[in-house]
Parts: sequence; C-alpha cells; structure tokens
Amino acid sequence: MYSIFISTTNIEWTIPASLLTTLTTPSNPSNPSSTTPPPLTTLPQTTILTPLDLKITSTPTATTLLTHPRTRKYTAEAVTTAFCKRASLAQQLTHCLTETFFPSVLARAKALDNHMAQTGEPIGPLHGLPISLKDSFNPADTNAALVDILLSAGAVLYAKTNIPQTMMTCDSVNNVFGRVLNPHGGNLTAGGSSGGEGALLALRGSILGVGTDVAGSIRVPGLCCGVVGFKPSAGRVPYGGVAGSGRSGMVGGIPVVAGPMGHCVGDMEVWLRAVLGGRPEEGDAGVVGFPWQEVQEVGDGRLRVGLYVEDASRPLHPNMRRTMKAAVGRLEGAGHTVVDITEQVPSMAEANAIAGRLFSMDPDRTAAKHIERGGEPPIDSLAITYTVGESLPEPSLGELYDLNVRKQGIMDRMRRVWLDNALDVIIAPGYQSCAVPHDTYGMPVYTAFWSLVDYPACVLPFGKANAELDRAELRDVVYEPAYKPEEVEGAPCHVQLVGRRMKDELLMQHAKIVEAVLRE
Amino acid sequence: MYSIFISTTNIEWTIPASLLTTLTTPSNPSNPSSTTPPPLTTLPQTTILTPLDLKITSTPTATTLLTHPRTRKYTAEAVTTAFCKRASLAQQLTHCLTETFFPSVLARAKALDNHMAQTGEPIGPLHGLPISLKDSFNPADTNAALVDILLSAGAVLYAKTNIPQTMMTCDSVNNVFGRVLNPHGGNLTAGGSSGGEGALLALRGSILGVGTDVAGSIRVPGLCCGVVGFKPSAGRVPYGGVAGSGRSGMVGGIPVVAGPMGHCVGDMEVWLRAVLGGRPEEGDAGVVGFPWQEVQEVGDGRLRVGLYVEDASRPLHPNMRRTMKAAVGRLEGAGHTVVDITEQVPSMAEANAIAGRLFSMDPDRTAAKHIERGGEPPIDSLAITYTVGESLPEPSLGELYDLNVRKQGIMDRMRRVWLDNALDVIIAPGYQSCAVPHDTYGMPVYTAFWSLVDYPACVLPFGKANAELDRAELRDVVYEPAYKPEEVEGAPCHVQLVGRRMKDELLMQHAKIVEAVLRE
Repeated sequence: MYSIFISTTNIEWTIPASLLTTLTTPSNPSNPSSTTPPPLTTLPQTTILTPLDLKITSTPTATTLLTHPRTRKYTAEAVTTAFCKRASLAQQLTHCLTETFFPSVLARAKALDNHMAQTGEPIGPLHGLPISLKDSFNPADTNAALVDILLSAGAVLYAKTNIPQTMMTCDSVNNVFGRVLNPHGGNLTAGGSSGGEGALLALRGSILGVGTDVAGSIRVPGLCCGVVGFKPSAGRVPYGGVAGSGRSGMVGGIPVVAGPMGHCVGDMEVWLRAVLGGRPEEGDAGVVGFPWQEVQEVGDGRLRVGLYVEDASRPLHPNMRRTMKAAVGRLEGAGHTVVDITEQVPSMAEANAIAGRLFSMDPDRTAAKHIERGGEPPIDSLAITYTVGESLPEPSLGELYDLNVRKQGIMDRMRRVWLDNALDVIIAPGYQSCAVPHDTYGMPVYTAFWSLVDYPACVLPFGKANAELDRAELRDVVYEPAYKPEEVEGAPCHVQLVGRRMKDELLMQHAKIVEAVLRE
Repeated sequence: MYSIFISTTNIEWTIPASLLTTLTTPSNPSNPSSTTPPPLTTLPQTTILTPLDLKITSTPTATTLLTHPRTRKYTAEAVTTAFCKRASLAQQLTHCLTETFFPSVLARAKALDNHMAQTGEPIGPLHGLPISLKDSFNPADTNAALVDILLSAGAVLYAKTNIPQTMMTCDSVNNVFGRVLNPHGGNLTAGGSSGGEGALLALRGSILGVGTDVAGSIRVPGLCCGVVGFKPSAGRVPYGGVAGSGRSGMVGGIPVVAGPMGHCVGDMEVWLRAVLGGRPEEGDAGVVGFPWQEVQEVGDGRLRVGLYVEDASRPLHPNMRRTMKAAVGRLEGAGHTVVDITEQVPSMAEANAIAGRLFSMDPDRTAAKHIERGGEPPIDSLAITYTVGESLPEPSLGELYDLNVRKQGIMDRMRRVWLDNALDVIIAPGYQSCAVPHDTYGMPVYTAFWSLVDYPACVLPFGKANAELDRAELRDVVYEPAYKPEEVEGAPCHVQLVGRRMKDELLMQHAKIVEAVLRE
C-alpha cells in the first residue's frame, strides 16, 4: 500500500510561470480556438532536469533502461529521481497526473539498489523500472492484484495518471484534476480514458505505463499521443481491485482489460511477460492463469496481413488514409502479403451499436447517478455516452441476451474471416483520424470493435498529419468529426494491429515485425 | 455429418424376451417398489457377443485399447463392431441410447483400418476408438465443434446417449426415450443429465464417452453409475454447436462445459490431450485455446489434500461418510497430507441457492415453455428445477448483477482457501450418498458448488454401500433424501477431486495419484 500525497509536484520542481504562458488550456475547451497552440513535446528549458536526468529519461525504451540497474550504469534511485522530476514537469504542462508517491518511491528505489549491491541480483524482471499507473488502480485500502505483481517484479510505481469523469469518454477531463492536454498540440484531445498515461509517456515523464481498455481506452490515448498501446485479451492480465465507474457485478458485456502503454512493442512484451510470470491467477479469480506462451511458429518471417480499410460510417480522414496506404506499401515492399478483408468483416457501425447498448445495460445508471448526486457538471464529451438526467428505455435481461447472441454471431464471423484468409495479423485504423480537437472524438468505432470480439490489439505510431501530402486523399464524403487539417497539422498518425483472442504473445511477435518495417 | 438411424438396435442384436423379464423399469418410476431389482451390470448370457466382442469390450481402459489398432491386435472394425453390439444390449437393458450410427461407423472403421494398412500410421491420437456422445451433441445440420475435433483425431462416434427432459435434473427421463436405468440397481437413478453415458459406460457398451456439466451433469451420472467423470474448467473444451434447452444468449450464469466420462483418469487425459491438440479455438470462438500444459511441478509426489467433509444442509449418508473416511485413511497411509478445510469453504447451501437462481435468470422460461407448448407432461424430478405453469418473480438485470457479485465473492474466498492452505487438490463428496432411488436425488449441492466457482472436478468410484459396515456411521440427523440402506445396498460410492480453475492438467496428474492410492 502506498501513502498518498495530494500535491502532485515537489515545490522545487515547479516550472517558472514565465515559461508556462503558452501552454495553458484553451479558454473554452469544448470550442477550441482555431489558433493551434505550440506542440508541448519539447520540454521548457529549465534547470530542473539535470543532464543525467535528461539522459536517463531520453533512453529510448524500457528494455534498454532495464539493463542499466543490473549493470549499475544508472542506479534505481537515479532513474526514479529522473522520472519523478520529468513527470512533475509533464503534469504542469498537461495535467496528466492525479497522485504521486515521490518520497516513498525514492526510498523504495534505494532499497532496490541496496538489494542489488548486496546480492548482485535484481528482485524481478522489472527491477528498478519506474511504471506509471492509470488513476483507477486502487491504492485506497489494498493494492489491485496487478499492482502487487508489478511490485514483486521490482517496479517502482511513482505516479497515477488522469482520466475522464466516469472513464467512459475519449477526452480525459474531470472536475477535480482538469483536462489532460495533448503534448502534440494543446487544442487536441490526449484521448481517453487513459489520457494521462498518453500525455505523460509522450513527454517522457514515463517510460512504461499501465492503462485499461474497454472500447479503446488504452489505444485511443496511444494513437492520440503518438505512443504504443497494447490491449490484451480479457482474462490474461488481472483487473481485480481496479476501481470502475459502473455498477458492481455487471456481466455479459465487454470486460475491461488492463494493459501496457509505452514506446515500443518490445516493452509491451517485457511488461506482459513479467505480469504473466507473476502468477496473476493467485491475486484475481477472474484470470485464466496461463503463463507466457513461447511462440513456436516462425516460418520465413513473411506475414499474411489482413487489411481492414474503413467502415463506411466513419470515412478515414486524409491523414489516416495516406498513413494506411503508406503502411501497406511498406509491408508489401518488405515481402509481406496484404489481403483486403474489409468486405468480409462485420459492420463496425453495427458492432459499435451493440457495444454501446451493452455499456448501457445498467438499470441503475450508476455512473450517471454518481454525477447527478454529486451535483457536479457532466463533462461535455459524456453526451455521447450517458444521457445525464434523462430517462432512457429500461434495459432488460432479454435485451442483454439478445445483444449477446448478436455479439456471438460477430465473433463467429470474425473467426471464419481469420481462418478463411489464413491470417497472421490484421492491420486496421485505430481511429479515422489522428488526434482531433477537444470533445469531438465521438464513438471509438475502430477500437471498440476489437473489444467486442475480445481480440488483442495494439496501436503503433506511424507518420504525422501533413496537410500538403494529405490533400491528395481528400474525398467527397461526410467526415465525422469534421476534417480540419490546420488544427491537426503535425499530429502523430498510427496503425492498429490485431491478433486472435488469447494469442497475445503471437500478436506481439507479429507486431514487432510490422514495427520494424514501419520504423525503417 | 452423420446419417441418423431411428432404430437404436440391429434386429439380430435383440435380447430374447425371456432374458429381459427381470430388467424392466418399476411400474411407477416416481415411487419405486421397495423390492430392489437385480443389478444389471452382468449382461445376460446371450450369444450376441462373441468371445472376441467380450474380450474387446472388457479391455480395462481406452488407453489400453488405443494401442491395439496400431499394433493390429484388433482392427478398428472389430473394436467398433464389439462396442456397437454391446451398446445395443445396454440400450435394451437400461434405455441409455437415443440414436445409433452403426452402419456408417462400421464403414468409417474399415476406412481407418485401410488407412493404417496403407500408411502404417494412425490418423490421430484417438484412431479407431469408439466414443459415445450425450444426445445434445448436434448432428442435425452441422457437427458440434467438439465432434469435428474428435473425428479428426480418429474417433469412431457410434451412439448418442439419453438425457432428462430439459437436461436440468439428475434423473435421465424423458417422454421420447424413457428412463435410463442404473446398471447397479434398476430402482436407482442413473444420474443426470448425462445419465445415458453413465449407464452405457457401466455396462461397458462404451469405453469413453462425452457428457456436459453445468451443475454436476457429468459427475452425477459418473458417481451414480460407478464410472469416472471429469468436468473441465469452462472455456477449454469447445461447447459450440451443442444443443441446449435454455434461452439463447443467456450469459453471466454458469457456463455449461463438455467433458469426458470413462473408466480411469488416464483416459480422461487421453481425451483432453486430443481435444486441446485439435486447435479447438478454430471451431468455437468461446474457447480460450491454450494447448495442453505439461505439468512441471512434481515434487516428491506427496500431495497436500484439502478435505471438505460436508455441508450441514446435506449430511453425508452413512455410506458416503464411511467412504470419505476410508479415502482419507488411504491417502494419509500413503504419505499424503490431508488438511480439513471444511470450515473455511463458503456455505455450499448458499452457493447452491445462488446457482439455482442463476439458472432461473431466463425471463422467457424457455425450457418450461417448450414443455407447456408441446403439451407433454413434465417429468417428476423437474419439480426441483422449474415450476412448470406457475408464474415466478420476474428475474431482472439488477438481480443478475447482484448474484454475480455474490458469486465473485465466493470465488475470491475459494482462491484464498486454496492459497492459504497451499493445496494441491481438494477431496470432497460429489453427493451425500451413492445413487438413490428414482426421482429423489434433489439439488446436486456438492457438484454445483464447483461449477459455480468454475473449478475442474472429477469423480472416481471408490467402495460400495454396505449396510452392515455403514451402520456405524448412522447419525441422528435429517438425511435428504431419506437414507434407505436396503434400497442402495451394493451401489458404488465415490470421491470427488477438485483442482484450480483452468489447471485441468494439474488436477489430472493429482487425480491419477489419488486414483492409484484408492485402487491399491
């Protein structure tokens, strides 16, 4: 258990007011000014971060950093200090944090260093690695099961990250901690619901974070903020003890899953190996408890990639249309086979309607009532999720079962699509655009689909919105939300990679191959 | 797909009427005569079975038999013929079958023999092995996913077995195929809902069968008929395509699981290895799809066995009380450690109430309405399950979620009990008695509990009811159902062994150790 510090930054890590002027939230967040604030990814030049802090926090991947506590290049204390400081700066720029545990984790880091000095051995596969956690991971009375596993593996859990009111929207805003800004443009959503993670990672205030995802809440902030996000299959990573906003005992819908966010697929693997190696079934009766499955299949390394182009209800914006074409071109150029499966995949709009109705199968409207009873204003983007204060048709058992029959039908069809095309992996957009202006994201159709069928899915950053290049992809269609090239210029684009249910290890191996191609 | 033959026996395999006189069902099945019919386990001495048929069908285990088609000691045709004939006799004695596929499977057996002759190789791990299937495995339009796997593995699926009306009771009776009689006493229930499998196996008309279990439907007929029954964890064995009696899309209750029944734990393993090796996830989106997990842990072979003695609501009858004490004595004598966990385990009566209410979470009362609309009389034992023709309180979403919260609480507590006691396996009764007279079984409290928490569980026959020996265990308690030693004399007793969720492989290894101790 952690002691909780309400203040989220140490006083000596405060950015001088003069340097913060250009970084404030637009005055009306739901109607952002058309003047795009400057990207926040370059930290202000203060003396708060020492050269060592900068060097440590600029380490490209957690995998690289993890070798250091063992070789003693950096102590756990130095690594932890550097990330605590940089997270503190990131918080001041983007409101990405909710709680920090800086003094207690510095003590833990020292203890880890002592252990290493005395035994020459790490205490686990994540020895000395700072890991940030979405706010919903409980430190209130007892640790969430996943927290205990990460601690046993040697992680240093130093900060918790901001989320939307109720967690059921793609804009991470609430009345307590404010709005998470996107480091790639203060007018853009950081995504949600793990939006604080996305912003913190993009600013390298974290090197590996943990989010949760029920319709895209890991992948949406990942793709908005230009970082990697991996949504595992349900039942592999423990979710026990994580706070939810909905009714207790809701069942038959789409399970929420916890998963990693970071800077490369290899880091996702390091994290998942550590979690699956931590006997997660001992802390959470809902976990299936199979250890990491070593991937046997290698073949010649040439993948059969199923290409899902778009759903007619959400035409790809020019930036993502160009990005997807570029990704396919790279893959084919590298000798992989790309097969278009778009027409065979069930309607994502219809699947999204099923998912949306499954989310509303709470006759008590628990989350909406929390807002009403608390007397706090609902955040703007919640309009897509809950109709606060309005009476809706009462959900029923019969409707839940009917929705489940339709969901099973979609799962059966996807199983056939996969087998009929002998796929290794699917490539698809994670959203119809790069990050869009605040409160315009809408329903996350391209991520919710894979949540409904419970397929593991991963977003990788790839390319950037570029109005000049993107112009060639402009079509005479109704874009939703509106396509505003000047607002999104330079924002990171992405691809989404999808594997088969429970075959998370295989997806990771395939995603590493695709990542290497896209990063060439 | 199979062609279906309505007649369940070939005319030349008909038992002469003179030999059947003592084997008929009691005239009023719901009120059996106190005169116990003779045990049916000894087949009538007809000339229908040749010495070779008798030798083949007396092979102790499927594992032993499986070696023969390879070494050509017996051809698949000879093996199939022998089991078709013996199943036909069993049907005439106990009404254990619903459909047979004798001509088509004999053709299949010949084809398997030809394959072996030409290639020297079996087509799969179950090459030439006759396997019987519970009636609910669809051959109507398409095969159930499990059927396709068994066929690919080389099995010969020759007969389907009788079940109760709706499958939701422990007496396998219906208005089409009649009542399955228990080979150990025609006055006793064969158990249900896989009652036909139990009777067929006990008469060695099958060497390996497949049942389904949602509250005990594999284990109850197993323990009533003196055979082994293994209920796997949900999600490992495909259930897709199996006919259910309930509403489509019901979710959040207790999943039905398919599993093997037979003569030893090793045969359960042969079956499960074959199924998990058949890529079950390709045929059923509901399967988790992890292959057989080789058991690493061996230790010194000494087990820590958790003993669950009894639930106060269902005191053990003297026969099972003596049996459990004897089993514990054997285990301790063999050097295993037995720890009494009874007081730590949640109330089975309460868990049973939760399970019972979960089964009734169908607002359409689908199974009961099928009976009403068909105008057929409900079978007597259904009174414990459905209140046919009566209006019950309408189940609701809120109640489903509340039940789920309570179920999760029980699962969490069982997880703690297992870890706190560092258990390898649990030994418990599968029922408070051996098989009891028709229509008196009542709620299967001791099996439904492990279904609710989704732990794999296995029943093994051990000992027999013996009024003289059992007398010492008579207590001044209210037995439910009534204890009638003269009615159950000589019926097989049993133990139930329980493993952790999804750790079916580990339970099988531990069950083999216990089985060896009990068979010494």
